[in-house]
Amino acid sequence: VSPSSPIKATLFPGDGIGPEIAESVKKVLTTADVSIDWDEHFVGDKVDPRTQSFLTWESLESVRRNGVGLKGPMATPIGKGHRSLNLTLRKELGLYANVRPCYSLPGYKTRYDDVDLVTIRENTEGEYSGLEHQVVRGVVESLKIITRQASLRVAEYAFHYAKTHGRQRVSAIHKANIMRKTDGLFLKCCREVAEKYPEITYEEVIIDNCCMMLVKNPALFDVLVMPNLYGDIISDLCAGLVGGLGLTPSCNIGEGGICLAEAVHGSAPDIAGKNMANPTALLLSAVMMLRHLKLNDKADQIHGAIIKTIADGKYRTADLGGSSSTTDFTKAICDNL
Amino acid sequence: VSPSSPIKATLFPGDGIGPEIAESVKKVLTTADVSIDWDEHFVGDKVDPRTQSFLTWESLESVRRNGVGLKGPMATPIGKGHRSLNLTLRKELGLYANVRPCYSLPGYKTRYDDVDLVTIRENTEGEYSGLEHQVVRGVVESLKIITRQASLRVAEYAFHYAKTHGRQRVSAIHKANIMRKTDGLFLKCCREVAEKYPEITYEEVIIDNCCMMLVKNPALFDVLVMPNLYGDIISDLCAGLVGGLGLTPSCNIGEGGICLAEAVHGSAPDIAGKNMANPTALLLSAVMMLRHLKLNDKADQIHGAIIKTIADGKYRTADLGGSSSTTDFTKAICDNL
Ligand SMILES: CC(C)[C@H](C(=O)O)[C@@H](O)C(=O)O
Ligand SMILES: CC(C)[C@H](C(=O)O)[C@@H](O)C(=O)O
Repeated sequence: VSPSSPIKATLFPGDGIGPEIAESVKKVLTTADVSIDWDEHFVGDKVDPRTQSFLTWESLESVRRNGVGLKGPMATPIGKGHRSLNLTLRKELGLYANVRPCYSLPGYKTRYDDVDLVTIRENTEGEYSGLEHQVVRGVVESLKIITRQASLRVAEYAFHYAKTHGRQRVSAIHKANIMRKTDGLFLKCCREVAEKYPEITYEEVIIDNCCMMLVKNPALFDVLVMPNLYGDIISDLCAGLVGGLGLTPSCNIGEGGICLAEAVHGSAPDIAGKNMANPTALLLSAVMMLRHLKLNDKADQIHGAIIKTIADGKYRTADLGGSSSTTDFTKAICDNL
Repeated sequence: VSPSSPIKATLFPGDGIGPEIAESVKKVLTTADVSIDWDEHFVGDKVDPRTQSFLTWESLESVRRNGVGLKGPMATPIGKGHRSLNLTLRKELGLYANVRPCYSLPGYKTRYDDVDLVTIRENTEGEYSGLEHQVVRGVVESLKIITRQASLRVAEYAFHYAKTHGRQRVSAIHKANIMRKTDGLFLKCCREVAEKYPEITYEEVIIDNCCMMLVKNPALFDVLVMPNLYGDIISDLCAGLVGGLGLTPSCNIGEGGICLAEAVHGSAPDIAGKNMANPTALLLSAVMMLRHLKLNDKADQIHGAIIKTIADGKYRTADLGGSSSTTDFTKAICDNL
């Protein structure tokens, strides 16, 4: 793909601050001369019976057709009779791996300045099965499901990612000392895949110990792969080390090579429409999408401009302690391109 | 109970460094004029059929009889046909609440200097049910069990603890947006108990968000109460904030008011017998045991001496970057008494 021929991609601006930060992405990409033909989809106002969700069938079809997409924050309406928007996307598009690179941003000070890791989360099963039963009054059970197929798939993705991104080590995170069979199967699959990648160091770390080590010395970690709930927890913990979900990108890899990049922070309804939102997470997610499209030069260039703008520190949005508007921060990035 | 009349308490020195750090506790307590008649029990070398574990029935009986105990690290032997030592204690003694105060130690520098919180973990059910099945080849399920009884019990303990320890806020940690029924029941029980404690602020925090907030700003938290696995994860994370499991105490509250204080770090076989181990976690756990026995003055005095010794920084064991022996560090504490 040449950077000047238009690429089709699905865009879910999402709710709350979503549309503003999506505008910022469009602006930056256009300025960098990346021509994307965005197929924009909004969350509907009624449940689509084909998806059982406020997301329409057409929206899902768009991602399937384009193979790539970018997603802002979506707030699932409260009520019964429909599925969570995020879970609908993961299930329907078979988004089996959630990839979240997490690194200290030069110039944005937190308690940690040496974080550079990637969490890879199994995204379809585990504790998210949705299977829960009340056995007798006052006794409720929920089922965690681990399958060989999904575990191998995400392990394969993690090792392949490590290899193609110059990473040295993959740590499988688990609690197999307690959940011997479920987490045990997950580890067994990771070990099988590890055999095929002798150049990558493989280790297994128990989740409680992993969290302790992450807060003491995150530089110990490189690529982490884990079942769904552990990934949910650890990816947010890691984001916290470098400043929070407003600064960390993510992308979801799905069946047939689909890539849906996603800002995982909330829709921040309190500041929506006020030109105050920080578009960094969505911008960095868009950069992940560009890399998926093999537009590495453009990705590097845009990434560099974002990092430089944050490091300069002159233009910062309120969440980072500054007072710049979304549009001024975006303009500063464009100027740095 | 007067501090000079001997109190009976069970002591499990445990494995590895266990006996050395238990010696340190005895020394410090004796020096502080706390006279305890220790009923010492060791982990056996064969499985006791009555407990299905290397822990004997007599050991369990001793804790039941004395009502209080102190436990060093125990390494469960590898192999089949027996239960984990820790899980045997929790199950057989009905140790329903694991209490871990976690605070920044003056003079021992980490990235955080403002931690002062207590995690209270449900210790008997949840993800630790041990119920796992292979459904078909390659598909394994494990059952998480949440009961109204255990949830109410631990919630009741947490609020009572907050009230009697001058704490203002209880945060229930959950993932009820996904596990609506199981974690939903846990929250429902917490809410019911919260009603009875109008003077304590009650809030609910989703576990992923909780971990992010803990690493960004742990001062936001006071008392945290949660199901078993979340407690396992978050208590270790919190220990990491202040230096690790070598510095943080814990105690387990069981049926009939049993209190088993416990150092939750490992048995460190590599340094066992070398007079190098750090006894701080076991010492601080013994302090928790003294408070349970209402020996608050003695507890304060010993606690003060431990804190002062660490703050002075002259005597520190190798894990804290010093080169003092266990006995020299212990002597320094005794001198500070
Ligand atoms: C919103 C919630 C359902 C979701 C999850 O638990 O997966 C979120 O925390 C995330 O990480 O994307
Ligand atoms: C050793 C292990 C079984 C135990 C647990 O998971 O509960 C430990 O991590 C703890 O926190 O006491």
